[in-house]
Amino acid sequence: MSSFEFHDSPLVGAKAPHFEVEATDGHARAGRFELARGVIETPIFMPVGTVGSVKMVSPRELNEVRSQIILGNTYHLYLRPGVEVLREVGGLHAWMGWDKPMLTDSGGFQFFSLAHLAKFDEDGVRFKSHIDGSHHLFTPERVMEIQAAIGSDIRMVLDHVLALPASEDDLRDAMERTTRWALRCLDAPRESGTAVFAILQGGTDHALRAAHRDALCQHDFHGFAIGGLSVGEPPEVMYDVLDRLVHTMPQEKPRYLMGVGTPRDLVRGIAAGVDMFDCVMPTRNARNGTVFTRDGRLNIRNAAFKTDMGPLDDACECAACTGFSRSYLHHLVRAKESLGPRLLSVHNLHYYLDLVGEARAAIRSGNFEAWAQQTFARWDSAESG
Amino acid sequence: MSSFEFHDSPLVGAKAPHFEVEATDGHARAGRFELARGVIETPIFMPVGTVGSVKMVSPRELNEVRSQIILGNTYHLYLRPGVEVLREVGGLHAWMGWDKPMLTDSGGFQFFSLAHLAKFDEDGVRFKSHIDGSHHLFTPERVMEIQAAIGSDIRMVLDHVLALPASEDDLRDAMERTTRWALRCLDAPRESGTAVFAILQGGTDHALRAAHRDALCQHDFHGFAIGGLSVGEPPEVMYDVLDRLVHTMPQEKPRYLMGVGTPRDLVRGIAAGVDMFDCVMPTRNARNGTVFTRDGRLNIRNAAFKTDMGPLDDACECAACTGFSRSYLHHLVRAKESLGPRLLSVHNLHYYLDLVGEARAAIRSGNFEAWAQQTFARWDSAESG
Repeated sequence: MSSFEFHDSPLVGAKAPHFEVEATDGHARAGRFELARGVIETPIFMPVGTVGSVKMVSPRELNEVRSQIILGNTYHLYLRPGVEVLREVGGLHAWMGWDKPMLTDSGGFQFFSLAHLAKFDEDGVRFKSHIDGSHHLFTPERVMEIQAAIGSDIRMVLDHVLALPASEDDLRDAMERTTRWALRCLDAPRESGTAVFAILQGGTDHALRAAHRDALCQHDFHGFAIGGLSVGEPPEVMYDVLDRLVHTMPQEKPRYLMGVGTPRDLVRGIAAGVDMFDCVMPTRNARNGTVFTRDGRLNIRNAAFKTDMGPLDDACECAACTGFSRSYLHHLVRAKESLGPRLLSVHNLHYYLDLVGEARAAIRSGNFEAWAQQTFARWDSAESG
Repeated sequence: MSSFEFHDSPLVGAKAPHFEVEATDGHARAGRFELARGVIETPIFMPVGTVGSVKMVSPRELNEVRSQIILGNTYHLYLRPGVEVLREVGGLHAWMGWDKPMLTDSGGFQFFSLAHLAKFDEDGVRFKSHIDGSHHLFTPERVMEIQAAIGSDIRMVLDHVLALPASEDDLRDAMERTTRWALRCLDAPRESGTAVFAILQGGTDHALRAAHRDALCQHDFHGFAIGGLSVGEPPEVMYDVLDRLVHTMPQEKPRYLMGVGTPRDLVRGIAAGVDMFDCVMPTRNARNGTVFTRDGRLNIRNAAFKTDMGPLDDACECAACTGFSRSYLHHLVRAKESLGPRLLSVHNLHYYLDLVGEARAAIRSGNFEAWAQQTFARWDSAESG
């Protein structure tokens, strides 16, 4: 990689990312993560823009729901539009009209979910495109090059994710390989204003998780992610891993729980000390008609909403709730008018960002545990009622 | 229909619609159409909201592209959400978040395009739902009731549209039935603030068109539409009908060319004296990647746009052109990201509304013919170049 690809980026010459915990309440933390393109207040949720757009949602709408950072997918962007186009257009930010921070994953999770198309060895991952079947190789170094072409602010190391259950030997092998790859990623060239996060693997085995924490956290990554969860294990198993692991991770570095999850997962994760989350759930579920509210989930396709003139959530200030009734949204989704899932996507993202904002405020006021219990009780009462 | 359904409507007790031609240039006219929900400046294009939303576009975006009036489809809204829901939610305007005027068609064109599902007799049209096969009857009176439930500002009479070519006898029968039905619609109860437009049929036969004009225009409709064009005949044949017919229609009433058309059709129609247009073309073509610009059409899927950092149209001020490059829109459409067709829909509507706005200004300044020739020349030179 020549320095040419870094040309004109606000990341070149920018000061290194800086994270600071400003308040704690139990294991929960509220912090600030300063990056070249802006400050992220944590805990935060990151909307997912898989192929260069957060599905159905415009950058203006992302700003209106108070997104502070979004996520892009290295695997998908590598295949479409490809590295050459990304370099030619000057990176993803200007191209898609998003000027705040962006995190890119490494492709590791896609090789897990498209496992039949991928082969792992020490070099990296050889895979076939899910679009046209063409052959490709991702090495740790290549993954960092691609993320530089995207121009993301936070870059994830290439990791080896296993489906659970897996044998302890397989988990240990994948974990050790992930460590070696993480260090190769950390050594790769990058702009001064960028952050590199390592990914802790180890499945649901506490000893392996602790070993991987020790192996990775001694190195100078800018943050640490928890990978390989929410891949089919029961929520209580994931919560147990989080409760034992997260608070033992470095206090001075941001902690990112990858690909998680439901609103309850977010609150449980924050309670365990997680600072950052991403998940396709708010946008993907919106496209199926599922809506998240202060009173739990509802499916707008339900006949009960046919003439319901109330908003999705009467405390919500999003464009869907302030402009349209459940009745109208029910009609749009049933009639397959795409304005429906579009408005539900905006609402769900707004709800997720409101939720982490409330958690942040509760932590700052030393009230997190009571807020979490109230939040759970309201969901539980609505969903059992 | 009891007066109950008219309750709370701004159309009840409102003064009757008033149209005034303010400037003419050749046969072209610029006018004002005052309705209870606002003033329409003509010539105007009306975006089509078939099933209760202009596909992919929010009311805010409709306002941003300077839509003055939109169209709803009686047939589609009758099937979904249905008259009972429309009455319960207080009509389509508040439900969909649109407070400016709305025109509703009568279903006549849908029975033409879904002809295998419809049978005509003097009562009306018996038809099977294209959704679930259920049986229904639209009479002229019923169509006016449904449009009252929708709460539209301008209501179209039920008409009998024939596919072309058709025999003179068949054309005459359909035309005479359309006249009888139009008078039944005019006699139906309606709110004081509403307008009823008759529809002139007669295919491409000048004598029949003139006969239908004479039969209908002696009655006190608020406006007259030209139906049954752009149904497969060559553009030049349609232009010939318009050039002979439109300027002979009442000067003091608005003239509406239904379901038309391309940008060129709009300019030719305005030249012939048409005041109002509607068409799905800007939104439907957007969903296929077709973009209308000052330099003619382009398909954004074309590989030439892969790294084209220019806007769709460099004189356009829409959200797509001011925020995104051809390159990014090309990517979105190719990757099937629905933000792509959404942004193209906004652009195409903006282009259509800009075009009629330019025509209006040219008429007011007595410069219409020169403006039209320049506009045609720019399209022609780009498309042949």
